[in-house]
Amino acid sequence: MSLLRSRIESANQPDCPFPLNNLPYGVFSLPGDAPRCGVAIGDMILDLAACERQGLLDAGGTFAQSQLNGFMARGRGEWDRMRARLIELLAERATGDLPLVAMAEAALHLPIRVTEYTDFYASKNHAFNVGVLFRGPENALPPQWTHMPIGYNGRASSVVVSGTPIRRPMGQVRGENGPEWAACRRLDLELELGAVVGADSTMGERLSVEDAEAMIFGYVLLNDWSARDVQAWEYQPLGPFQSKALGTTIGPWVVTQAALEPFRCEGAPRVNPLLPYLAEERPGFYDLEIGWAMNGQVMGRTNYNVMYFSSAQQLAHHTESGCPMRVGDLLGSGTISGPSPDQTGALLEMTRNGKVAVMVNGQPRTFIEDGDEVALFANAQGDGYRIGFGPCTGTILPAKP
Amino acid sequence: MSLLRSRIESANQPDCPFPLNNLPYGVFSLPGDAPRCGVAIGDMILDLAACERQGLLDAGGTFAQSQLNGFMARGRGEWDRMRARLIELLAERATGDLPLVAMAEAALHLPIRVTEYTDFYASKNHAFNVGVLFRGPENALPPQWTHMPIGYNGRASSVVVSGTPIRRPMGQVRGENGPEWAACRRLDLELELGAVVGADSTMGERLSVEDAEAMIFGYVLLNDWSARDVQAWEYQPLGPFQSKALGTTIGPWVVTQAALEPFRCEGAPRVNPLLPYLAEERPGFYDLEIGWAMNGQVMGRTNYNVMYFSSAQQLAHHTESGCPMRVGDLLGSGTISGPSPDQTGALLEMTRNGKVAVMVNGQPRTFIEDGDEVALFANAQGDGYRIGFGPCTGTILPAKP
Repeated sequence: MSLLRSRIESANQPDCPFPLNNLPYGVFSLPGDAPRCGVAIGDMILDLAACERQGLLDAGGTFAQSQLNGFMARGRGEWDRMRARLIELLAERATGDLPLVAMAEAALHLPIRVTEYTDFYASKNHAFNVGVLFRGPENALPPQWTHMPIGYNGRASSVVVSGTPIRRPMGQVRGENGPEWAACRRLDLELELGAVVGADSTMGERLSVEDAEAMIFGYVLLNDWSARDVQAWEYQPLGPFQSKALGTTIGPWVVTQAALEPFRCEGAPRVNPLLPYLAEERPGFYDLEIGWAMNGQVMGRTNYNVMYFSSAQQLAHHTESGCPMRVGDLLGSGTISGPSPDQTGALLEMTRNGKVAVMVNGQPRTFIEDGDEVALFANAQGDGYRIGFGPCTGTILPAKP
Repeated sequence: MSLLRSRIESANQPDCPFPLNNLPYGVFSLPGDAPRCGVAIGDMILDLAACERQGLLDAGGTFAQSQLNGFMARGRGEWDRMRARLIELLAERATGDLPLVAMAEAALHLPIRVTEYTDFYASKNHAFNVGVLFRGPENALPPQWTHMPIGYNGRASSVVVSGTPIRRPMGQVRGENGPEWAACRRLDLELELGAVVGADSTMGERLSVEDAEAMIFGYVLLNDWSARDVQAWEYQPLGPFQSKALGTTIGPWVVTQAALEPFRCEGAPRVNPLLPYLAEERPGFYDLEIGWAMNGQVMGRTNYNVMYFSSAQQLAHHTESGCPMRVGDLLGSGTISGPSPDQTGALLEMTRNGKVAVMVNGQPRTFIEDGDEVALFANAQGDGYRIGFGPCTGTILPAKP
């Protein structure tokens, strides 16, 4: 697919993350006014609440809300109609006044009210690498790993928007003479893509992979900050808990499925057939470069197409038991890692649990230090245009003992 | 403490679960009208929304809402004032018309909007018994178990009120030649007490056990239905997921801390000192008989005082990392089991993972069969009165293949 040209000239630059092809949704405010919904176009934000007040579009008033949940709940038909209308309004030859604000002047807020948050574990490289570190190479990949998307429920209340500082947690960790209370010494990131669920499902009913995909409104960058020393001590047998509750940072822009559709591709090759409830009619992955930087230096870079289970498969599996899903549920893909160290999405893997330091601007790092900034990025490269996700950054504050 | 006599004569009977000493909060409706908040007294419900309309009390309009969250968010001071006012209104010598409805005529609804749901694992007997079955006696109790309340995030969307039928889930289970897709064959209950969080905490701030206790609004009966065969296949390394998402049943009445205060007691003896962040100034357990019945036959009966970590300790630990808590969060105690089989709160333990059948009304059971009804109960026995929790029942519907 090639660039759709916009009347907003900055959106037509080949390296702009927000061309007319993208149109990601977010929530913004200007100094002194209330958060409302907007869409990114070039270096501007189209004020969707104002658009509706001016009669340019109709979203039942949901764009005046401070989260996208109300708009998402209007359903997939409305998502498609709104995209078509926005392309009409913002196309190169369109005329008429539009309520645009400079992105540089706006504050960006958490785009969704996160109803519940689930984190998966769907990169085989990551699962294997971490498994080796925690359990040795023989038991690295759990026996069910290639048969189901392994996931756990995370904590929705600790999801924050890009730019929110993250405090290094205190925690209970394994010490030489029993447990100790300490500031986390192995603070890590996890490079993930988050799928935003835009529709409810019914308790007791399962979703097919196809139906599940139709419920995904879009995707955000997601950094699932992790306290590895806390995790190692706490996680057996019921899984990670406080090690994952210090904060999860998501990007401010929800990139829609429609924008990513031209980049649909296969994921990692299957090593065994899947049970029919996880079978996909068409692959649910995207050719999307994704990576992370520390203090401005790119550290890891890979592609979402290394993943073994798609968000649609994860969502279908999530309803296996009849579990109802709700508008605003957030599904983390799991850490996205390619096979080599410079393709890994976590320091745990990159430094082999702290054994091999990596250099960041000439300074050695095994885990994240106070003051470090971690920034995720993702880009899908089209023909003369690019789909970007905007920032997903967080800076670490010292622990409060 | 002795019975507080009420003008509602049924509340003064020694075996009534809802004397004036109790005053649990719930949400009810009569045929054709809207759910609103009420308090149980004898065989009646005091319509709190109507009380406020009549000027008998002031809760800022929150009792007209269909969940207790609004009232809870008014804070502990208001909880205490409201209890005092309700005792005044319902005392034996009080006069004046009260908007009372017969409990038998009311439908009882989910009393809280469950914000997030966390399930713990705080009965040492249960943890040991289950550990033996899943991992053998050597590794039965995880090494951190006596040092921290182990918990995992559950799924809030699948929490339902007593009386809601529960569908036997389909799921992926271990088969002889790889994984299989099957109706759950090892469906179980878990006998728990749920603590309802009634206040928010701040991200990045930890709660002391004392502060945590002050945030607990009250307690409900809680049955965490569990698909043991799904659990066995899925739960390593990230913990239980779909095996616990088929449904969690809670009772309709939230029994307040104030009502349970006279029954405060020590829990299970400590086998090692706790780190200071978990230390309690006074014990956080209650002398509360708790048990369950199947198809009308009592199967297991024990006491909440067998628990090793209190809800206040669990809540404090939940904020160890700086994780913010929110009004409406629900914390399951973990399965409550005494040492002997007839004191266990799950069939997994009682039947040693299906190896030893138990008799229910003359029929053998290893796990729950379609059509079985499981009912939890709890009572704290005072001097001439009893604090009850009302029903917490669920009947199993056949799987939908």
